[in-house]
Amino acid sequence: MSAKKKGMQSVVFLNPPCLASWASIVGPKEGEGPWGNSFDVKLSDYLLGENTWEKAESKLLQDTVTMAMSKQGLGVDEAEILLAGDLLNQIASANFAARSLNIPFLGLFGACSTMAESLILGAMLLDGGFYQRVIAATSSHHYSAERQFRFAIEQGVQRSPSAQWTATASGAVVLEAGGAGLKITAATVGKIIDMEQSDVNNMGAAMAPAAADTIKMHLADMELASDHYDLIVTGDLGSVGAALLRQLFVRDGLVPAPNYSDCGILLYDEKQDVHAGASGCGCSAAMLCGPLLAKMQRGELNKLLFVGTGALMSPTTSFQGESIPCIAHAVAIENI
Amino acid sequence: MSAKKKGMQSVVFLNPPCLASWASIVGPKEGEGPWGNSFDVKLSDYLLGENTWEKAESKLLQDTVTMAMSKQGLGVDEAEILLAGDLLNQIASANFAARSLNIPFLGLFGACSTMAESLILGAMLLDGGFYQRVIAATSSHHYSAERQFRFAIEQGVQRSPSAQWTATASGAVVLEAGGAGLKITAATVGKIIDMEQSDVNNMGAAMAPAAADTIKMHLADMELASDHYDLIVTGDLGSVGAALLRQLFVRDGLVPAPNYSDCGILLYDEKQDVHAGASGCGCSAAMLCGPLLAKMQRGELNKLLFVGTGALMSPTTSFQGESIPCIAHAVAIENI
Repeated sequence: MSAKKKGMQSVVFLNPPCLASWASIVGPKEGEGPWGNSFDVKLSDYLLGENTWEKAESKLLQDTVTMAMSKQGLGVDEAEILLAGDLLNQIASANFAARSLNIPFLGLFGACSTMAESLILGAMLLDGGFYQRVIAATSSHHYSAERQFRFAIEQGVQRSPSAQWTATASGAVVLEAGGAGLKITAATVGKIIDMEQSDVNNMGAAMAPAAADTIKMHLADMELASDHYDLIVTGDLGSVGAALLRQLFVRDGLVPAPNYSDCGILLYDEKQDVHAGASGCGCSAAMLCGPLLAKMQRGELNKLLFVGTGALMSPTTSFQGESIPCIAHAVAIENI
Repeated sequence: MSAKKKGMQSVVFLNPPCLASWASIVGPKEGEGPWGNSFDVKLSDYLLGENTWEKAESKLLQDTVTMAMSKQGLGVDEAEILLAGDLLNQIASANFAARSLNIPFLGLFGACSTMAESLILGAMLLDGGFYQRVIAATSSHHYSAERQFRFAIEQGVQRSPSAQWTATASGAVVLEAGGAGLKITAATVGKIIDMEQSDVNNMGAAMAPAAADTIKMHLADMELASDHYDLIVTGDLGSVGAALLRQLFVRDGLVPAPNYSDCGILLYDEKQDVHAGASGCGCSAAMLCGPLLAKMQRGELNKLLFVGTGALMSPTTSFQGESIPCIAHAVAIENI
């Protein structure tokens, strides 16, 4: 059940679902970043025993979901439904992972906002009384995404300074009705915002206004000051987009609180030469299911606003001269 | 709230959401079919004033959603959320339609099962108390889909007899909490079934086992005989897949009731030379939002089981030798 007031874009969960367990698996480059030791698994290669990047990504997602369930000593078939998506055309990674996982499945597409989207829908399906245990998950893979959206990496095309590096990473959360521990207490589903930015090598700039819109709406709906949350974390604006978001906070009269960060900035070290930072559904998913939820569990963070941001263009629409429609969804996770 | 029993794959809605209004728009070929006069709009061309097939499809979806709301005298901004998806890479049609429609949006991908997926999630979000008015919608376009999944039609490649014709069509339903009239009373979210069929020119055969699995599960969960529904309609198996499904009904001990049909068979006339029938997200969406719901409104049908079926391959996975993972979701719509 929800305490949503008429006209409010945000939803408050009256029976907040709990994050019962979670897992994160990252690729070699991500494992070398500053949070490398906070992920469950750092892969030693990018193929996971498969013979294509796409199959590797699907295996990555499948393994992460399986691990999230196994942390409670459960098999995947003890979850009632999987809500998942990814960046590949026809969300191939999620579809093929769902085939192996063999539980009821609803496919989502929200680009890099998918982890937030799956958490919001999962929380609604639990609080609504439809399920008792739901898995929310997503993944991305550097090599499958680059060749689909930009260039096969073998071509060695020079990257723009504002470009973000698609992370090889996956995160999965097992959400349960009731229970103790970390809870999803509220959520804001975003609208598409498109400021006519069309440079696909600067997705952070395209997404920043969507993030600003959703965060502003969330704080207004919930009647919260911008320093209510111990951390507001977007995923993934990168350094260019995050700097713009700080400017938008100021424009909108929100204190540009020190409690803001971005998963795209956090995942890699500056020395790793990823230019504007990380992107990809798996970046914010792994940052959440790795370091962020661990910090919450340790009590170092008690109120987190996780804001998934998605750049919803396709190569076809970009080739046809379209700008980048962007979206952001906010999920409030609290230690209560 | 749900009356779902532990271990049951299906969900029963305790406060069944109503289908408050709906709309369907179809292309010229679909308008020439046997149900042409049952759709709200038959387009006279495939471009809707746009300069690419992809933009035309997005416009088609946008217009259908707008029309579904306008039937109640409402603007789109009087709906709280849009749940939509389509066949294009990164669900481009839905993303760009959502940009114009400017309401909160969650993107879905279920291939031709998307209409059922959006109805199920919409019903859950309403019955759960999170929203009062939700739009569920999807679209497909023959020319955008063919060039993405198979060949640009200008190439004139010969089509296999078992191939289905991607429909140019769109359907949108406005779901509301409470209210009178047609209601969504129950739903079954399917699992992925893959019988290792890899011929993308015979998707009906690939999808039939998924449809059988979900229908069988739905009837078992709900303790219903196979003739409980006035009509069980799949979308879209086409003639090859529907014939296989009838065989699977027999194998599974279900009466191959006369009350079974398939949107892929219904949409076109045999004379229209579409080989095994229609496919595409828009086919089942338009058949539902055109003739089927009209029949329910007139009392000619009172209990409908709408079973959206999706072939979840991508061209990349097919090129890599993968078979077709398939899914089916069932939605019970009743005149109560």
